Order: sequence, then C-alpha cells, then structure tokens
Amino acid sequence: MRHVLSALVQNLPGVLSHVAGMLASRGYNIESLAVGETERPDLSRMTFVVRGDASTLDQVRKQLEKLVTVVHVDNISAQDFVERDLMLIKVNVPEGRRSEIMELVEIFRGQVVDVSSKQMMIEISGKERKIEAFVEVLRPFGIVEMVRTGQIALVRAMQFNESGTLKG
Amino acid sequence: MRHVLSALVQNLPGVLSHVAGMLASRGYNIESLAVGETERPDLSRMTFVVRGDASTLDQVRKQLEKLVTVVHVDNISAQDFVERDLMLIKVNVPEGRRSEIMELVEIFRGQVVDVSSKQMMIEISGKERKIEAFVEVLRPFGIVEMVRTGQIALVRAMQFNESGTLKG
Repeated sequence: MRHVLSALVQNLPGVLSHVAGMLASRGYNIESLAVGETERPDLSRMTFVVRGDASTLDQVRKQLEKLVTVVHVDNISAQDFVERDLMLIKVNVPEGRRSEIMELVEIFRGQVVDVSSKQMMIEISGKERKIEAFVEVLRPFGIVEMVRTGQIALVRAMQFNESGTLKG
Repeated sequence: MRHVLSALVQNLPGVLSHVAGMLASRGYNIESLAVGETERPDLSRMTFVVRGDASTLDQVRKQLEKLVTVVHVDNISAQDFVERDLMLIKVNVPEGRRSEIMELVEIFRGQVVDVSSKQMMIEISGKERKIEAFVEVLRPFGIVEMVRTGQIALVRAMQFNESGTLKG
C-alpha cells in the first residue's frame, strides 16, 4: 500500500541522513521525497511516499518520532488530504508540431518556461496521476529530460455544519 | 554560496541514505531536497540546494559520483537554468477578508485548492523568491500550515544561431 508521511524535523545537518538511514534499515524504499522550509526557520517538513503494509508503517512512524531531531510525524494519507507534485519536462519539438504540443500544454494547464528551435521546457503541477498522464502524451515526441519534486500534501480543513457535526 | 545539484541515482532502497550520509559527514546542510521519478523507471533524480564554497562542492560532487548507486551529478547552478518550487499553504481567513486573499492569490498566479469557513488552502509554484514573497503577504492573516517541495531545476536548451555560433 502507498502511504504519504509528513515529518516535521529540525533544520540541522544530518537529520535527513538519520531519517533515510532508519527507513533504509527497515527495507522501506522511498518512492518520492520532498524536503522544504516551513513557517518556522528552525524546522523543515519532509513529505515522503513509501509502500508497505499499514502495521509496519506505524512502527516506522513511531521509530522516526524517537529520533531527537524529528519533532512530529503524521500519516497524511490516513486523512482527507490535498496532494501536489511539480514537474519540469524538456521535450523534442519535431518540425511543424509545435502547436500540437502547445495544445496539450493548455489542456493540462501546464506552462511553457523555455523554448529553443528544437526543444521546449514545460512546467506542470497537479496530482501524481495527472503528471503521469502528461508524460505519456508527450512521450511520442521524445522526452529529453525531466525532473519531479515528489509529492507534497496537506490535510484538508475540517468542516463543521451549524449543529456542530463533522462534515469531513 | 548557494548551489543547485542534480543527481541521477538508481531507484533502490538505501540510495538516499548513502547520499545524505555523505553530505552530512562533510558538514553540508541540505537546504532543500526533492527526489522524484524520471523518464526511466530504474532511475530517480535528486535535486538539492546546498550552501558552501565552490571548491569543496566540487569535491562533494566527485565523492557522490564514486557511490555505485549514483549515476551522474550535475552542478546545475553553474549553467543557465530554470528553477521551480511548489508550495501548499493553509491560511486563516479573518471575517470579511476572503476577497482580499483571493486578490493576492490571483496576483501571484496561485490556485485555491481547498476552502472552509475559516481557512483556505492555496497552491503556488515559481522561483524561490516569488514563493517567499507570497508567504510574506499572507503572514498577517495567520499561516496555519505550509509545505514546500524544495527546488527542482533543468538546464535551458542551448540556442545556436544560423552561423552555428553559441547564443547561450
């Protein structure tokens, strides 16, 4: 099963090495990882996507929280969440097919960020499935290079109706 | 100095741990890291932003390339490149100020991805400086939570003019 974990960690050298070492020692392969700044300069947030059964994942979460540099770990995918991934992709532009590619970029709400006579670089964000679909439609033109951020996610705000019942 | 490195690595458990361990042992603090899939299922691409002087960075690059799981390391920031970062941010919506926030979202070309009566979640991508400016304009409303992917980057395509001279 695919899980999205979000860990709030201290912004110190070695933290990533601790976390990565712990996950590797348990045999968890990290499918994607994004580490970025947070609202507090002393803390970073790591979002990682891992595969594994739920019970082992819970153990890993607890083990991670034992690391002194890890403040808190959240199993985001166990809740109602919004996920996004960002990609830069460089694609070949075969003669006379630029407008065809532009049309696909528009459909997927991407953005052209660099153009040369034979190539185009496109920025696109969205759910994993959308990004993957975009890669597939571009593949026949020839993908030169691509880079993805890995997924980030935040839990949705809870909605209470007037009687105070949780709407989800 | 701030450097953007891009490493093509084998998609295997433990690779991240090797790379992170190596950087930590050299005292390099990783400012941001993004690990995502590439055009080849057996390879991942790591983009990391580190600070340090250029000569030591070059040593680190060479050391990284000695790891068997690392295919290639590129110093992207030494070239002409496009960089992007993605953020999800949850902000408080004080009574009567929703349209004010919406206006800022539009100016920064962000996108509202979740709304509740008292909060709003916004997606925004761009250069680091743009993301940071957006955080600053939202700060007075009260930032509930935020998560960033860390930077990804690709080198721009080179432009040759008709005489074959490199235009850069």
